[in-house]
Amino acid sequence: MKKLIDKAAVLVEALPYMRRFFDKTIVIKYGGSAMVDATLRESFAVDVVLLKYIGLRPVIVHGGGPQIGQTLERLGKKSEFVDGLRVTDDETMEVVEMVLGGRVNQSIVDLVHRAGGRAIGLTGRDGRMLQVRRKRPGGKDLGRVGEVVHVDSSAIDATTRQGFIPVVAPIGADEDGLSYNVNADEAAGAIAVALGAVKLILLTDVEGVLDAQGQLMSQLSSAEVGKHIDEGTIRGGMIPKLACCLSALEGGVARAHVIDGRILHAVLLEIFTDTGVGTLITR
Amino acid sequence: MKKLIDKAAVLVEALPYMRRFFDKTIVIKYGGSAMVDATLRESFAVDVVLLKYIGLRPVIVHGGGPQIGQTLERLGKKSEFVDGLRVTDDETMEVVEMVLGGRVNQSIVDLVHRAGGRAIGLTGRDGRMLQVRRKRPGGKDLGRVGEVVHVDSSAIDATTRQGFIPVVAPIGADEDGLSYNVNADEAAGAIAVALGAVKLILLTDVEGVLDAQGQLMSQLSSAEVGKHIDEGTIRGGMIPKLACCLSALEGGVARAHVIDGRILHAVLLEIFTDTGVGTLITR
Amino acid sequence: MKKLIDKAAVLVEALPYMRRFFDKTIVIKYGGSAMVDATLRESFAVDVVLLKYIGLRPVIVHGGGPQIGQTLERLGKKSEFVDGLRVTDDETMEVVEMVLGGRVNQSIVDLVHRAGGRAIGLTGRDGRMLQVRRKRPGGKDLGRVGEVVHVDSSAIDATTRQGFIPVVAPIGADEDGLSYNVNADEAAGAIAVALGAVKLILLTDVEGVLDAQGQLMSQLSSAEVGKHIDEGTIRGGMIPKLACCLSALEGGVARAHVIDGRILHAVLLEIFTDTGVGTLITR
Amino acid sequence: MKKLIDKAAVLVEALPYMRRFFDKTIVIKYGGSAMVDATLRESFAVDVVLLKYIGLRPVIVHGGGPQIGQTLERLGKKSEFVDGLRVTDDETMEVVEMVLGGRVNQSIVDLVHRAGGRAIGLTGRDGRMLQVRRKRPGGKDLGRVGEVVHVDSSAIDATTRQGFIPVVAPIGADEDGLSYNVNADEAAGAIAVALGAVKLILLTDVEGVLDAQGQLMSQLSSAEVGKHIDEGTIRGGMIPKLACCLSALEGGVARAHVIDGRILHAVLLEIFTDTGVGTLITR
Amino acid sequence: MKKLIDKAAVLVEALPYMRRFFDKTIVIKYGGSAMVDATLRESFAVDVVLLKYIGLRPVIVHGGGPQIGQTLERLGKKSEFVDGLRVTDDETMEVVEMVLGGRVNQSIVDLVHRAGGRAIGLTGRDGRMLQVRRKRPGGKDLGRVGEVVHVDSSAIDATTRQGFIPVVAPIGADEDGLSYNVNADEAAGAIAVALGAVKLILLTDVEGVLDAQGQLMSQLSSAEVGKHIDEGTIRGGMIPKLACCLSALEGGVARAHVIDGRILHAVLLEIFTDTGVGTLITR
Amino acid sequence: MKKLIDKAAVLVEALPYMRRFFDKTIVIKYGGSAMVDATLRESFAVDVVLLKYIGLRPVIVHGGGPQIGQTLERLGKKSEFVDGLRVTDDETMEVVEMVLGGRVNQSIVDLVHRAGGRAIGLTGRDGRMLQVRRKRPGGKDLGRVGEVVHVDSSAIDATTRQGFIPVVAPIGADEDGLSYNVNADEAAGAIAVALGAVKLILLTDVEGVLDAQGQLMSQLSSAEVGKHIDEGTIRGGMIPKLACCLSALEGGVARAHVIDGRILHAVLLEIFTDTGVGTLITR
Repeated sequence: MKKLIDKAAVLVEALPYMRRFFDKTIVIKYGGSAMVDATLRESFAVDVVLLKYIGLRPVIVHGGGPQIGQTLERLGKKSEFVDGLRVTDDETMEVVEMVLGGRVNQSIVDLVHRAGGRAIGLTGRDGRMLQVRRKRPGGKDLGRVGEVVHVDSSAIDATTRQGFIPVVAPIGADEDGLSYNVNADEAAGAIAVALGAVKLILLTDVEGVLDAQGQLMSQLSSAEVGKHIDEGTIRGGMIPKLACCLSALEGGVARAHVIDGRILHAVLLEIFTDTGVGTLITR
Repeated sequence: MKKLIDKAAVLVEALPYMRRFFDKTIVIKYGGSAMVDATLRESFAVDVVLLKYIGLRPVIVHGGGPQIGQTLERLGKKSEFVDGLRVTDDETMEVVEMVLGGRVNQSIVDLVHRAGGRAIGLTGRDGRMLQVRRKRPGGKDLGRVGEVVHVDSSAIDATTRQGFIPVVAPIGADEDGLSYNVNADEAAGAIAVALGAVKLILLTDVEGVLDAQGQLMSQLSSAEVGKHIDEGTIRGGMIPKLACCLSALEGGVARAHVIDGRILHAVLLEIFTDTGVGTLITR
Repeated sequence: MKKLIDKAAVLVEALPYMRRFFDKTIVIKYGGSAMVDATLRESFAVDVVLLKYIGLRPVIVHGGGPQIGQTLERLGKKSEFVDGLRVTDDETMEVVEMVLGGRVNQSIVDLVHRAGGRAIGLTGRDGRMLQVRRKRPGGKDLGRVGEVVHVDSSAIDATTRQGFIPVVAPIGADEDGLSYNVNADEAAGAIAVALGAVKLILLTDVEGVLDAQGQLMSQLSSAEVGKHIDEGTIRGGMIPKLACCLSALEGGVARAHVIDGRILHAVLLEIFTDTGVGTLITR
Repeated sequence: MKKLIDKAAVLVEALPYMRRFFDKTIVIKYGGSAMVDATLRESFAVDVVLLKYIGLRPVIVHGGGPQIGQTLERLGKKSEFVDGLRVTDDETMEVVEMVLGGRVNQSIVDLVHRAGGRAIGLTGRDGRMLQVRRKRPGGKDLGRVGEVVHVDSSAIDATTRQGFIPVVAPIGADEDGLSYNVNADEAAGAIAVALGAVKLILLTDVEGVLDAQGQLMSQLSSAEVGKHIDEGTIRGGMIPKLACCLSALEGGVARAHVIDGRILHAVLLEIFTDTGVGTLITR
Repeated sequence: MKKLIDKAAVLVEALPYMRRFFDKTIVIKYGGSAMVDATLRESFAVDVVLLKYIGLRPVIVHGGGPQIGQTLERLGKKSEFVDGLRVTDDETMEVVEMVLGGRVNQSIVDLVHRAGGRAIGLTGRDGRMLQVRRKRPGGKDLGRVGEVVHVDSSAIDATTRQGFIPVVAPIGADEDGLSYNVNADEAAGAIAVALGAVKLILLTDVEGVLDAQGQLMSQLSSAEVGKHIDEGTIRGGMIPKLACCLSALEGGVARAHVIDGRILHAVLLEIFTDTGVGTLITR
Repeated sequence: MKKLIDKAAVLVEALPYMRRFFDKTIVIKYGGSAMVDATLRESFAVDVVLLKYIGLRPVIVHGGGPQIGQTLERLGKKSEFVDGLRVTDDETMEVVEMVLGGRVNQSIVDLVHRAGGRAIGLTGRDGRMLQVRRKRPGGKDLGRVGEVVHVDSSAIDATTRQGFIPVVAPIGADEDGLSYNVNADEAAGAIAVALGAVKLILLTDVEGVLDAQGQLMSQLSSAEVGKHIDEGTIRGGMIPKLACCLSALEGGVARAHVIDGRILHAVLLEIFTDTGVGTLITR
């Protein structure tokens, strides 16, 4: 009986969070280990379905770099990288579309169904959701890599209005309808802004944002993020992630989180506990 | 972190129950210790608000015998009892209306608000919800004690349609509008049938239905209940409670529960665990 | 036949008023003789039901001072009065809740049903409708006497949207949920403002507002009211009533009326005749 | 004051009728003196607008024989009559359309507007409302005289759904779209059936249905009507009117009335008094 | 097969126009030969029904001068003309109402039904749609000739909301409800403004607006129209038509067209081809 | 001008078809040359968008055999065929999902957007639309080839309700969520039944169903189809296509068509001409 009451206490603790997030949209960038490890995959799917039942509106945006890499390899196709970004020629783009839009996306849709939810897979080309232009970082041409210039959320709305959880592959199209690979963090941030989400959650394979001593910083303001980057405390792959967070915050999203996707039920813990499991970025 | 993940696990365990009861109506007869003890009161209110957030439609029907007794005493008014039922003269009925409809009902409304919900208090006279006739058990006249002949649930619907939790005092009116005291268990059962509820929960001050050895019987079919009563295994105040349960089951309610209101979060445990905390009566 | 045609003429005369008030909200403070005398009670209920059928949206706010006094007396409890306001200790407040919220409120609900309408009784605690703070006139502490700081009309809306006539007992709650006695005129005025009512009607036991010679003044502007009070022509209990009227007018209510509740069908006459039966206060 | 209270009493007397007819459709055949005499015209229009405000759904179907006759005369066109029915050649039909559909219909629309209502004029050709075939009483060809074979009420619904009072000229069309003159009583009866009206009122220039001694029969069952016709007590122009009534009753209309349109506010009196002003025909 | 594919090509060419005008309102003044010649009548009706099916909202406003003339002649009534406008005494006005509102209007309603659409005929008196005052061009009194001062489009809305095509006879009423003859072009323009139409089409019996050499000018700006009138290039009956167009453009209508109603399917060609069949007037 | 009028005539000819199919669902199996040839692709997309604008509800179900073959080849993967069906091992299924669900599906979505429509791509796994079991023709195991056992059309409904054209890749899932390749004709037929479509159109690379002499049979009843198959007149790949048609007809679809996708605007011609372009199968 004691155990039962402890269980009830946990549900009760969640109540203020349910109230706070009721009917609110939360965009989750899904990727990394949480997408590879079977147990983590399942725990992620259960979290999302639970959020839906409790009255939130979760939207999943996923990546798929490793899966793309594998398929390219099988096809004997080598990728060149510029500043960590894959140069995407037409043949590579075709593979991106097949892997992200066909395989990865649908396997997440299936994951959600297995956890008891109802999902529809979308790419950013459906309903011309992600409208992009060719990205030219430092003037360099990376091929079919796009940056988001506009989000038309009506395809997402069509699914959520009928009770589905949308699962979005970050593929966009330019004015001519030509498809482009979009960074998943960036797509998630832009979609969060377009939907007026209250929260953007980036699932990563690190503990969160770490300081110079490798210690987790559990909360950072936008200004502090800038300072840390300037001072070189924050480096590498975390920088573009934080840029997405800052951009989402500027666009009206209330809170952005970089969390550790290697923890079971990381999303649930983020939403239903005060401390959360990673770093919270605020305006 | 381990503790956090255990917490998440509890939420996850609740998911199948959320799915099962989503958008379903559950009528709870509230009374006894759970209405007197401050901690239990709060735990009850939190449970109900939680149910509401998770998507269920809880309806509270309350008693108030002890509170009525206190006020009668303060007024120097003595009650006569026939077969455990208070003989209710006009003066007593006036006190019943004031205590149940004015004080007890509103204190529960307040309780729900403090737990973060929104409630509206009703009596069975609002919108002519509980239509009764004079009860004459064994031909005896108990005065203003009524038995329900019809339930018009439109007053309850008006509140739930706008997101409120209805809190109902078991006072009815006869064809001439004369008010009557109604047994709260009976009122709860009749309301559960009228609303097409999936569950009727009676909060009591006992562990549940006990067998001849005083052991809790965790599940009973309607037929078994009858047999136990015939054989005298079940006796006393439990008999009318079980009669309400059987009548609700006959009226289409799927499950009736006699649970132990002295346990913290008894309602939550009943709904979100398989074993529950008391006796389940099924058809 | 002549008599019949005369009858028709009366209905026809009412037509322009029906047009003017169609779908408009009218808040009526109900109290005094109209609440005590059996014939007047019935005539009041019929009036309100008629307004409802003709397409108006009547809202009843009632007092109950005498009924509270009687019950306090029966309990052997004496009240102290400061400037005509009852000092309300916790025990007295309990009686107020029982009498206003339990007995008086429900007897009006019954009254409306007998006249063929459908009503739901509310107190200002339902849906946290009347949010108050402790009133300290001239710094004096009167105990649990509240002044309205905010009205949340959603509980009223829930009832009217489903076709019920709301009957409101003027009991409020402060931020902590503690209940307070609110002056019924004041509550009616605040509710009229919150609902965007076109008319506030205060039923009294006098002819209306009288001038120095004791003659009825059938119409007064806000400015004139102020002047009369300054000059001492208007005195006593009429002053707080007029203050409620002025405050309602300031809050956007188009017209406020102090009418003679001792006249049969006073409400109907007020609404369906040009002269009305009392004093009209305009901006 | 006495006079005022008497007025209120009249309104109060009307309440049970308002309740009974709330949101119900009532079809009124308008014609005869009530359409010619200026005072009666105005009293009729006021009655209809009043019904609308009180929550009923009045539908007006009008005749116009005398006005047709006048115009034919001005055009030097003579009409032949067979069994009291005007033989309607193509030229005559053109006049019927112009007079009924253009002049008479619109003058009633104007009448309603002057009384404070909002009206839209229709003919049975609008939205193919009155679908007819050539009437051949006793095999005789009367030209463009039609009998109703089907009513499509969607044009009427379009007007009532937006709060207008429909005013219908009894002109129909056959399968080829050719227009026909329809008897207004017959059209009113068929429309009442199609709309599921609770009442059909035929305004006439007689007191009602009279017995052999010329005394008004205030109520008749369908069976009694048949008997009176068989016995020759009822004769002449009243017979087709009663046939319309019987047919409407068979089609589900609850009550049919033949009333005296020469009385001021005849419609109002019919609806808001028990005795009414003419003859009630019931099933 | 070649022929079939050519057919498909025509449909395909219409697609951009369908997209452009989807759910848009288009007001068409119908008159002249297109209303007299049987083949043109039918082609017009088919055009309008087609527009409706393709998702546009056509509104027909018709004239009827010749038909009025004929009837006046038959009645031996002579009309005086002042500056091309018929002096309309009361007797003449009665004929206007009968002919326009009764005969012409209903024959167009029938025409639409024969082409497979659903129509309701209205006059500007229905729902007080066309509110006018007496027109006094140059101070001259022409009798019952009105100019539009306000359009209440709710009667039109009632019909279109239920899927009907409204057919409007240009008869208005002044403040006292007195009916007036309104120029059909003027009525069409005012209605187009009130409905927020994107296009006003005037069907005429000329090729369009011609230049001094008698050549069609296929497009004119408002400024050019003014210049042509000042220079006398445009003269006669075309001037008031162009005035209606300019006034509609000022009122927010995007494009006005003077087209040749003597061409089969003139309306369709206007809407579904770039060149159109007449003169386009733009702001 | 003559040419213009001819154009109008084509639009007018289409009117009865627009009326017939207004708001009706039409499922089109898209494949073959129409999916490969650039001109045919564009003409197909325009047809579908046109149908949408005219008020029909087109649903596209596509195949992609050749594209799958190409990718398998690039990956050096050989396919075995049994009775013309590709044996689908897990690795092949992965390619099917990527090619059909990722590349082909999205290229059709893009096609529709370029033609001016709005589309959302779905697979039969979205919303668990296509629920399948392993197909074992003649007991043979073909691996991940499924036959449809149930269609849940809610994912399609979600898109059409918001105005999108759904584009469906024929991939299903069994009870365990395992994905299967489904024959596109079969998927189209099952979806047509589930949606209550009035028409199923199979785009092929042949003229239609041919008789023994190689002549097109433009119409066949279900019975005739059976007879032709029994007699061996119809053979080969046409047999399973006709089986899909018959099964759709049995399921309530009114008409099934096998048409020649090599003709420009084949879909449009099928819908807007009486003869159509292929073979019509009726019940």
